[in-house]
Amino acid sequence: MSSNPTPDRALHPAAEPFAFMLGTWAGSGEGSYPTIDGFSYLEEVTFGHVGKPFFAYTQKTRHAETGAPLHAESGYWRFLTGDGVTGSGIELVMVHPTGVAELLSGAFIAEHGGGTFELSCPNVATTASAVLVERTTRQFHFDGDTLSYDVAMAAVGQPLTHHLSATLSRRG
Amino acid sequence: MSSNPTPDRALHPAAEPFAFMLGTWAGSGEGSYPTIDGFSYLEEVTFGHVGKPFFAYTQKTRHAETGAPLHAESGYWRFLTGDGVTGSGIELVMVHPTGVAELLSGAFIAEHGGGTFELSCPNVATTASAVLVERTTRQFHFDGDTLSYDVAMAAVGQPLTHHLSATLSRRG
Repeated sequence: MSSNPTPDRALHPAAEPFAFMLGTWAGSGEGSYPTIDGFSYLEEVTFGHVGKPFFAYTQKTRHAETGAPLHAESGYWRFLTGDGVTGSGIELVMVHPTGVAELLSGAFIAEHGGGTFELSCPNVATTASAVLVERTTRQFHFDGDTLSYDVAMAAVGQPLTHHLSATLSRRG
Repeated sequence: MSSNPTPDRALHPAAEPFAFMLGTWAGSGEGSYPTIDGFSYLEEVTFGHVGKPFFAYTQKTRHAETGAPLHAESGYWRFLTGDGVTGSGIELVMVHPTGVAELLSGAFIAEHGGGTFELSCPNVATTASAVLVERTTRQFHFDGDTLSYDVAMAAVGQPLTHHLSATLSRRG
Protein backbone atom coordinates (compact mmCIF):
# COMPACT_ATOMS: atom_id res chain seq x y z
CA MET A 1 0.00 0.00 0.00
CA SER A 2 1.31 3.43 -0.85
CA SER A 3 1.56 6.20 1.72
CA ASN A 4 1.19 8.76 -1.09
CA PRO A 5 -1.67 10.98 0.13
CA THR A 6 -2.94 11.59 -3.41
CA PRO A 7 -2.62 8.50 -5.60
CA ASP A 8 -3.48 8.62 -9.29
CA ARG A 9 -7.22 8.26 -8.75
CA ALA A 10 -10.04 10.50 -10.02
CA LEU A 11 -11.51 12.98 -7.57
CA HIS A 12 -14.96 12.20 -6.21
CA PRO A 13 -17.55 14.58 -7.76
CA ALA A 14 -18.35 16.03 -4.30
CA ALA A 15 -14.65 16.87 -3.84
CA GLU A 16 -14.03 18.35 -7.31
CA PRO A 17 -14.93 21.93 -6.31
CA PHE A 18 -12.21 21.73 -3.64
CA ALA A 19 -9.34 20.43 -5.82
CA PHE A 20 -7.48 23.71 -5.15
CA MET A 21 -6.83 22.52 -1.56
CA LEU A 22 -4.87 19.39 -2.52
CA GLY A 23 -1.14 19.16 -1.90
CA THR A 24 1.31 20.52 0.65
CA TRP A 25 1.30 24.01 2.15
CA ALA A 26 3.97 25.57 4.38
CA GLY A 27 4.56 28.85 6.15
CA SER A 28 4.47 30.47 9.55
CA GLY A 29 2.01 31.56 12.20
CA GLU A 30 1.51 33.34 15.50
CA GLY A 31 -0.27 32.13 18.61
CA SER A 32 -1.65 33.90 21.65
CA TYR A 33 -4.10 33.25 24.46
CA PRO A 34 -4.90 35.11 27.69
CA THR A 35 -3.31 32.35 29.79
CA ILE A 36 0.01 31.97 27.92
CA ASP A 37 2.85 33.97 26.34
CA GLY A 38 2.62 34.69 22.62
CA PHE A 39 4.60 32.40 20.31
CA SER A 40 5.62 31.95 16.66
CA TYR A 41 5.72 28.72 14.70
CA LEU A 42 6.52 27.10 11.36
CA GLU A 43 3.79 24.93 9.87
CA GLU A 44 3.19 22.30 7.22
CA VAL A 45 -0.30 21.21 6.11
CA THR A 46 -1.23 18.44 3.65
CA PHE A 47 -4.51 17.56 1.94
CA GLY A 48 -4.77 14.20 0.13
CA HIS A 49 -7.55 12.10 -1.39
CA VAL A 50 -8.36 8.51 -2.40
CA GLY A 51 -11.31 9.16 -4.74
CA LYS A 52 -13.88 9.45 -1.96
CA PRO A 53 -15.88 12.54 -0.87
CA PHE A 54 -13.34 13.58 1.75
CA PHE A 55 -9.75 14.82 1.98
CA ALA A 56 -7.24 13.49 4.51
CA TYR A 57 -5.68 16.36 6.50
CA THR A 58 -2.42 16.53 8.42
CA GLN A 59 -0.88 19.49 10.19
CA LYS A 60 2.44 19.82 12.00
CA THR A 61 4.07 22.85 13.58
CA ARG A 62 7.62 23.47 14.78
CA HIS A 63 9.30 26.09 16.92
CA ALA A 64 10.32 29.05 14.75
CA GLU A 65 13.89 29.15 16.12
CA THR A 66 14.77 25.66 17.37
CA GLY A 67 12.74 23.57 14.90
CA ALA A 68 11.44 21.45 17.80
CA PRO A 69 8.05 19.81 17.18
CA LEU A 70 5.16 21.76 18.71
CA HIS A 71 1.58 20.94 17.72
CA ALA A 72 0.07 18.37 15.36
CA GLU A 73 -3.42 17.56 14.07
CA SER A 74 -4.83 14.93 11.76
CA GLY A 75 -8.26 14.22 10.39
CA TYR A 76 -10.63 14.44 7.46
CA TRP A 77 -12.58 17.12 5.56
CA ARG A 78 -16.01 15.81 4.55
CA PHE A 79 -17.82 17.32 1.54
CA LEU A 80 -21.54 16.74 2.04
CA THR A 81 -23.60 16.50 -1.08
CA GLY A 82 -27.07 17.55 -0.04
CA ASP A 83 -28.64 14.16 -0.71
CA GLY A 84 -31.52 14.91 1.66
CA VAL A 85 -30.18 12.57 4.31
CA THR A 86 -26.85 14.04 5.33
CA GLY A 87 -27.58 17.65 4.42
CA SER A 88 -25.05 19.81 2.61
CA GLY A 89 -22.04 21.72 3.79
CA ILE A 90 -18.64 20.89 5.19
CA GLU A 91 -17.53 18.82 8.15
CA LEU A 92 -13.97 18.70 9.49
CA VAL A 93 -13.13 16.01 12.04
CA MET A 94 -9.68 16.03 13.62
CA VAL A 95 -7.78 14.93 16.70
CA HIS A 96 -4.80 16.47 18.48
CA PRO A 97 -2.13 14.52 20.38
CA THR A 98 -3.21 16.47 23.47
CA GLY A 99 -6.33 14.26 23.68
CA VAL A 100 -8.69 16.69 21.96
CA ALA A 101 -11.19 15.89 19.18
CA GLU A 102 -12.81 18.66 17.15
CA LEU A 103 -15.90 17.86 15.06
CA LEU A 104 -16.41 21.09 13.14
CA SER A 105 -19.17 21.90 10.69
CA GLY A 106 -20.05 24.89 8.56
CA ALA A 107 -20.07 26.30 5.07
CA PHE A 108 -17.79 27.13 2.14
CA ILE A 109 -18.10 30.55 0.54
CA ALA A 110 -16.65 30.48 -2.98
CA GLU A 111 -14.60 33.48 -4.11
CA HIS A 112 -12.44 34.24 -7.14
CA GLY A 113 -9.27 32.15 -6.76
CA GLY A 114 -10.61 29.91 -3.97
CA GLY A 115 -12.88 30.74 -1.08
CA THR A 116 -13.41 30.62 2.66
CA PHE A 117 -14.44 27.82 5.00
CA GLU A 118 -16.31 29.05 8.08
CA LEU A 119 -16.37 26.22 10.61
CA SER A 120 -17.26 25.82 14.27
CA CYS A 121 -17.26 23.10 16.91
CA PRO A 122 -19.72 23.89 19.70
CA ASN A 123 -18.78 20.83 21.77
CA VAL A 124 -15.14 19.79 21.74
CA ALA A 125 -14.55 16.22 22.97
CA THR A 126 -11.59 15.64 25.31
CA THR A 127 -10.09 12.66 27.10
CA ALA A 128 -9.99 12.46 30.89
CA SER A 129 -6.35 13.64 30.96
CA ALA A 130 -6.65 16.50 28.44
CA VAL A 131 -6.70 20.21 29.16
CA LEU A 132 -10.31 21.40 28.96
CA VAL A 133 -11.21 22.85 25.54
CA GLU A 134 -14.90 23.67 25.21
CA ARG A 135 -15.52 25.34 21.85
CA THR A 136 -13.60 26.33 18.71
CA THR A 137 -14.11 28.26 15.49
CA ARG A 138 -11.84 28.02 12.45
CA GLN A 139 -11.74 30.06 9.25
CA PHE A 140 -9.62 28.82 6.34
CA HIS A 141 -9.13 31.20 3.41
CA PHE A 142 -7.74 29.93 0.10
CA ASP A 143 -6.63 32.46 -2.53
CA GLY A 144 -4.58 30.93 -5.34
CA ASP A 145 -1.32 29.69 -3.86
CA THR A 146 -1.98 31.20 -0.42
CA LEU A 147 -3.79 29.60 2.52
CA SER A 148 -4.44 31.65 5.64
CA TYR A 149 -6.43 30.67 8.70
CA ASP A 150 -7.64 31.83 12.09
CA VAL A 151 -8.50 29.69 15.10
CA ALA A 152 -10.42 30.87 18.17
CA MET A 153 -11.14 28.73 21.20
CA ALA A 154 -12.95 28.74 24.53
CA ALA A 155 -10.70 26.79 26.89
CA VAL A 156 -9.51 26.62 30.51
CA GLY A 157 -12.34 28.93 31.60
CA GLN A 158 -11.77 31.64 28.96
CA PRO A 159 -14.54 32.78 26.59
CA LEU A 160 -14.15 32.26 22.83
CA THR A 161 -10.86 34.12 22.14
CA HIS A 162 -8.47 34.41 19.20
CA HIS A 163 -5.71 31.78 19.47
CA LEU A 164 -3.88 31.20 16.15
CA SER A 165 -3.37 32.76 12.75
CA ALA A 166 -1.00 31.70 9.97
CA THR A 167 -0.26 32.23 6.30
CA LEU A 168 0.99 29.32 4.20
CA SER A 169 2.10 28.98 0.57
CA ARG A 170 1.55 26.09 -1.80
CA ARG A 171 4.62 23.83 -1.94
CA GLY A 172 3.38 20.97 -4.12
CA MET B 1 9.60 19.85 7.25
CA SER B 2 9.94 16.12 6.81
CA SER B 3 6.94 13.84 6.49
CA ASN B 4 9.00 10.99 7.94
CA PRO B 5 6.81 9.69 10.80
CA THR B 6 9.83 8.74 12.91
CA PRO B 7 12.66 11.26 12.56
CA ASP B 8 16.02 10.66 14.22
CA ARG B 9 14.91 11.90 17.61
CA ALA B 10 15.11 10.14 20.98
CA LEU B 11 11.96 8.50 22.31
CA HIS B 12 10.22 10.26 25.19
CA PRO B 13 10.72 8.26 28.42
CA ALA B 14 6.95 7.65 28.68
CA ALA B 15 7.00 6.13 25.18
CA GLU B 16 10.10 3.95 25.59
CA PRO B 17 8.21 0.88 26.90
CA PHE B 18 6.18 0.95 23.66
CA ALA B 19 9.05 1.20 21.14
CA PHE B 20 8.04 -2.23 19.79
CA MET B 21 5.00 -0.60 18.19
CA LEU B 22 6.94 1.80 15.96
CA GLY B 23 7.04 1.32 12.21
CA THR B 24 4.75 -0.06 9.52
CA TRP B 25 2.56 -3.14 9.83
CA ALA B 26 0.57 -4.84 7.03
CA GLY B 27 -1.75 -7.80 6.69
CA SER B 28 -5.39 -8.73 6.31
CA GLY B 29 -8.60 -8.76 8.28
CA GLU B 30 -12.25 -9.78 8.35
CA GLY B 31 -15.29 -7.70 9.17
CA SER B 32 -18.84 -8.55 10.13
CA TYR B 33 -21.84 -6.91 11.74
CA PRO B 34 -25.47 -7.95 12.14
CA THR B 35 -26.61 -5.27 9.66
CA ILE B 36 -24.13 -5.96 6.82
CA ASP B 37 -22.55 -8.78 4.80
CA GLY B 38 -19.17 -10.06 5.97
CA PHE B 39 -16.10 -8.72 4.16
CA SER B 40 -12.31 -9.13 3.90
CA TYR B 41 -9.71 -6.42 3.67
CA LEU B 42 -6.01 -5.62 3.35
CA GLU B 43 -4.59 -3.22 5.90
CA GLU B 44 -1.60 -1.01 6.61
CA VAL B 45 -0.93 0.59 10.01
CA THR B 46 1.87 3.02 10.95
CA PHE B 47 3.12 4.28 14.31
CA GLY B 48 5.53 7.24 14.37
CA HIS B 49 6.95 9.58 17.00
CA VAL B 50 8.54 13.03 17.34
CA GLY B 51 10.10 12.62 20.80
CA LYS B 52 6.92 13.41 22.72
CA PRO B 53 4.86 11.07 24.95
CA PHE B 54 2.56 9.97 22.10
CA PHE B 55 2.73 8.04 18.83
CA ALA B 56 1.03 9.21 15.64
CA TYR B 57 -1.21 6.47 14.23
CA THR B 58 -2.52 5.95 10.70
CA GLN B 59 -4.57 3.08 9.37
CA LYS B 60 -5.79 2.36 5.82
CA THR B 61 -7.67 -0.62 4.45
CA ARG B 62 -8.31 -1.76 0.90
CA HIS B 63 -10.64 -4.27 -0.74
CA ALA B 64 -9.01 -7.73 -0.70
CA GLU B 65 -9.74 -8.34 -4.43
CA THR B 66 -10.00 -4.95 -6.14
CA GLY B 67 -7.55 -2.96 -4.02
CA ALA B 68 -10.10 -0.12 -3.79
CA PRO B 69 -9.74 2.07 -0.68
CA LEU B 70 -12.16 1.10 2.09
CA HIS B 71 -11.68 2.49 5.60
CA ALA B 72 -9.13 4.87 7.12
CA GLU B 73 -8.35 6.17 10.61
CA SER B 74 -5.81 8.59 12.00
CA GLY B 75 -4.94 9.78 15.46
CA TYR B 76 -2.61 9.56 18.42
CA TRP B 77 -1.71 7.07 21.17
CA ARG B 78 -1.08 8.89 24.46
CA PHE B 79 1.15 7.32 27.13
CA LEU B 80 0.14 8.76 30.48
CA THR B 81 2.82 8.89 33.09
CA GLY B 82 0.98 8.85 36.37
CA ASP B 83 2.08 12.34 37.41
CA GLY B 84 -0.87 12.66 39.78
CA VAL B 85 -2.65 15.07 37.48
CA THR B 86 -3.36 13.11 34.34
CA GLY B 87 -3.40 9.64 35.88
CA SER B 88 -1.67 6.70 34.26
CA GLY B 89 -2.71 4.41 31.46
CA ILE B 90 -3.26 4.70 27.73
CA GLU B 91 -5.47 6.97 25.66
CA LEU B 92 -6.08 6.55 21.93
CA VAL B 93 -7.80 9.40 20.10
CA MET B 94 -8.72 8.90 16.44
CA VAL B 95 -11.08 10.09 13.76
CA HIS B 96 -12.59 8.29 10.78
CA PRO B 97 -13.50 9.92 7.46
CA THR B 98 -17.08 8.83 8.15
CA GLY B 99 -17.38 11.67 10.70
CA VAL B 100 -16.68 9.53 13.77
CA ALA B 101 -14.27 10.35 16.65
CA GLU B 102 -13.22 7.68 19.14
CA LEU B 103 -11.59 8.74 22.42
CA LEU B 104 -10.54 5.43 23.90
CA SER B 105 -8.85 4.81 27.22
CA GLY B 106 -7.61 1.78 29.07
CA ALA B 107 -4.57 -0.20 30.08
CA PHE B 108 -1.55 -2.00 28.69
CA ILE B 109 -0.80 -5.50 29.95
CA ALA B 110 2.86 -6.37 29.30
CA GLU B 111 3.66 -9.89 28.11
CA HIS B 112 6.78 -11.62 26.84
CA GLY B 113 7.42 -10.23 23.34
CA GLY B 114 5.01 -7.31 23.64
CA GLY B 115 1.65 -7.09 25.32
CA THR B 116 -2.01 -6.22 24.99
CA PHE B 117 -3.84 -2.89 24.98
CA GLU B 118 -7.39 -3.14 26.32
CA LEU B 119 -9.22 0.05 25.32
CA SER B 120 -12.79 1.26 25.32
CA CYS B 121 -14.74 4.34 24.24
CA PRO B 122 -18.04 4.59 26.15
CA ASN B 123 -19.21 7.71 24.24
CA VAL B 124 -18.28 7.92 20.56
CA ALA B 125 -18.59 11.42 19.09
CA THR B 126 -20.17 11.74 15.65
CA THR B 127 -20.97 14.60 13.28
CA ALA B 128 -24.55 15.45 12.32
CA SER B 129 -24.23 13.53 9.03
CA ALA B 130 -22.50 10.41 10.38
CA VAL B 131 -23.99 6.97 10.92
CA LEU B 132 -24.70 6.58 14.63
CA VAL B 133 -21.90 4.79 16.50
CA GLU B 134 -22.41 4.74 20.27
CA ARG B 135 -19.66 2.69 21.88
CA THR B 136 -16.52 0.76 20.89
CA THR B 137 -13.94 -1.54 22.43
CA ARG B 138 -10.57 -2.34 20.89
CA GLN B 139 -7.91 -4.90 21.86
CA PHE B 140 -4.47 -4.66 20.22
CA HIS B 141 -2.09 -7.57 20.83
CA PHE B 142 1.62 -7.22 19.98
CA ASP B 143 3.78 -10.36 19.95
CA GLY B 144 7.19 -9.85 18.35
CA ASP B 145 6.62 -9.08 14.66
CA THR B 146 2.87 -9.79 14.80
CA LEU B 147 0.08 -7.34 15.60
CA SER B 148 -3.48 -8.62 15.92
CA TYR B 149 -6.56 -6.71 16.98
CA ASP B 150 -10.28 -6.98 17.60
CA VAL B 151 -12.87 -4.20 17.41
CA ALA B 152 -16.41 -4.38 18.78
CA MET B 153 -19.00 -1.64 18.44
CA ALA B 154 -22.50 -0.67 19.44
CA ALA B 155 -23.95 1.13 16.41
CA VAL B 156 -27.18 1.68 14.46
CA GLY B 157 -29.24 0.28 17.33
CA GLN B 158 -27.18 -2.93 17.84
CA PRO B 159 -25.64 -3.84 21.21
CA LEU B 160 -21.84 -4.09 21.57
CA THR B 161 -21.00 -6.70 18.90
CA HIS B 162 -17.82 -8.01 17.30
CA HIS B 163 -17.01 -6.04 14.13
CA LEU B 164 -13.37 -6.45 13.00
CA SER B 165 -10.35 -8.67 13.53
CA ALA B 166 -7.03 -8.66 11.68
CA THR B 167 -3.49 -9.98 11.87
CA LEU B 168 -0.62 -7.81 10.62
CA SER B 169 3.13 -8.36 10.29
CA ARG B 170 5.94 -5.88 10.83
CA ARG B 171 7.12 -4.40 7.52
CA GLY B 172 9.60 -1.79 8.65
